[in-house]
Amino acid sequence: MRQAGRYLPEYREVRSRVASFLDICRTPELAAEVTLQPLRRFNLSAAIVFSDILIVPYALGQKLEFVEGEGPKLDPVRDGQAIARLDDSNLLRTFGAVYETVERVSSALPKDVPLIGFCGAPWTVASYMVAGGSSKEQAEARLWAYREPAIFLDLIQLLIDTSVEYLLGQVNAGADVLQIFESWAGCLSDDEFARWCIAPALSIVERVKQKAPHVPIIGFPRGSGPLAVRYAKEAGIDAIGCDATLPLDWIKDSLQPLLPVQGNLDPLLLVSGGSRLDARVKATLAELGKGPFIFNLGHGIQPDTPISHVERLIALVKGASA
Amino acid sequence: MRQAGRYLPEYREVRSRVASFLDICRTPELAAEVTLQPLRRFNLSAAIVFSDILIVPYALGQKLEFVEGEGPKLDPVRDGQAIARLDDSNLLRTFGAVYETVERVSSALPKDVPLIGFCGAPWTVASYMVAGGSSKEQAEARLWAYREPAIFLDLIQLLIDTSVEYLLGQVNAGADVLQIFESWAGCLSDDEFARWCIAPALSIVERVKQKAPHVPIIGFPRGSGPLAVRYAKEAGIDAIGCDATLPLDWIKDSLQPLLPVQGNLDPLLLVSGGSRLDARVKATLAELGKGPFIFNLGHGIQPDTPISHVERLIALVKGASA
Repeated sequence: MRQAGRYLPEYREVRSRVASFLDICRTPELAAEVTLQPLRRFNLSAAIVFSDILIVPYALGQKLEFVEGEGPKLDPVRDGQAIARLDDSNLLRTFGAVYETVERVSSALPKDVPLIGFCGAPWTVASYMVAGGSSKEQAEARLWAYREPAIFLDLIQLLIDTSVEYLLGQVNAGADVLQIFESWAGCLSDDEFARWCIAPALSIVERVKQKAPHVPIIGFPRGSGPLAVRYAKEAGIDAIGCDATLPLDWIKDSLQPLLPVQGNLDPLLLVSGGSRLDARVKATLAELGKGPFIFNLGHGIQPDTPISHVERLIALVKGASA
Repeated sequence: MRQAGRYLPEYREVRSRVASFLDICRTPELAAEVTLQPLRRFNLSAAIVFSDILIVPYALGQKLEFVEGEGPKLDPVRDGQAIARLDDSNLLRTFGAVYETVERVSSALPKDVPLIGFCGAPWTVASYMVAGGSSKEQAEARLWAYREPAIFLDLIQLLIDTSVEYLLGQVNAGADVLQIFESWAGCLSDDEFARWCIAPALSIVERVKQKAPHVPIIGFPRGSGPLAVRYAKEAGIDAIGCDATLPLDWIKDSLQPLLPVQGNLDPLLLVSGGSRLDARVKATLAELGKGPFIFNLGHGIQPDTPISHVERLIALVKGASA
């Protein structure tokens, strides 16, 4: 899960040097620097490359900007013509900067700290591409997928192909682990979830594993609820990320027997801190720590997270696993 | 689930006569009219009173307006002083209009068509009260609940007390069934869900049942995922509403053995219609129709729903149950 960001003063210093968040992602020197910043401060077990899931549509030529306080804005893709205008002939122009970031970080990290590369899952990325940004319950993408599944599948297929290339490029550059972020899995019924989330994930995983069988792939179907079980069984992944709403006993009984699990502390509890944070971390370790488990947040870290709370969290987790 | 609304021309006609959506809720003649409109058009098995879950904070004196296209706006309640300023001494001034609506609808409905009264669940209502409107993942309410649980509980307790009075008032006016809408159940970890969603629901249900033991109460913990099982077991409810993301086989195996289930068609599938709508309705009836089951949408009906799709849906469901 996102580690770098606005909760760190050294990140804000780097951010202040450029006009846009996207400029950090496009500048390997800066992206590598902010990727490494949390590792310098905290005793973390892994690093995750600093980038954004919307790099993929950007690489496909979709206009993208990040408006401070408003989130991403894209020129919406709403029909077959708009899909046809997406251009996958020059992906390296954009992905090259991410690959160089991965190279820089990989060579700077100690050998025992793996580097996680990632992409957004096709459904989630498509939901931004179709809506032109964040959307309420992914309504635009859902309606299109229900009305014209064959055309919508063209978009998903393009995202599958592009994501495979992008993930393999990160592996070639030095990524040790990959993660697929299905941030908006929580809006589809079971049949549509199978079609638009599980099938594309499986396709990506199978194709990546043909070339890089040794690289573990973590899937993160955020908000999928009970469908996380089906995702764990059918998406071909090696480990599953759990959001904060999945109950600990259910994760232990339903997911952990299938796969290593990652998660799932509420990022707002890390903001509020105190004895409730301590109690929840201990409960999580007690419930999940006996099986294969990667402690993590249930979603990205919040900008207003006090650094002392992160330190406390890491001390609790590292103390328990020592 | 909401039946009346912008997808009906006769609703838009009533809406055009008043300045605000809230004016319909406050005017029993109009609220009763729009409650009955879908029943005149369609062969429906039940009616649900036209109102809004934010009537409760409005009755408590919190300033409320509905801005077209922007949703509800309230003066945020952010500290103990603001809670203390809420005034439950004159609830009937607001609730009286809803009770009169219930009376009008109840006397107009055929005897075999039950009328559903409802309220928002305390956590969901509080999330609007604290944020001053819709909020991103209920962050404001969650942070307050984590940081100052004792003070936040005062707000929840006030909402429990007020909701009990409100629901009993609707029963006294003629409501045959009650529903508690926990629309924002999908943001809390298991322990916080138990504290802020299950415990208040149980408290409301127990107190309503003391006075009105014959009235069935449906709980709707939208987005609760696997936690819906715990809600079904512990909240004291008689039936459980399922959102569209809960898989049919999981509902059948995990919820239906506990309680009658209600749901869960994706409202956007009713917008898109066609053979996929037909197939999904049939699959839903095949999976859930053998146990205790109330066919419904998984959330409120969308404004752009074609009337012909609603007619088709009802024909399919009524045909299957005939």
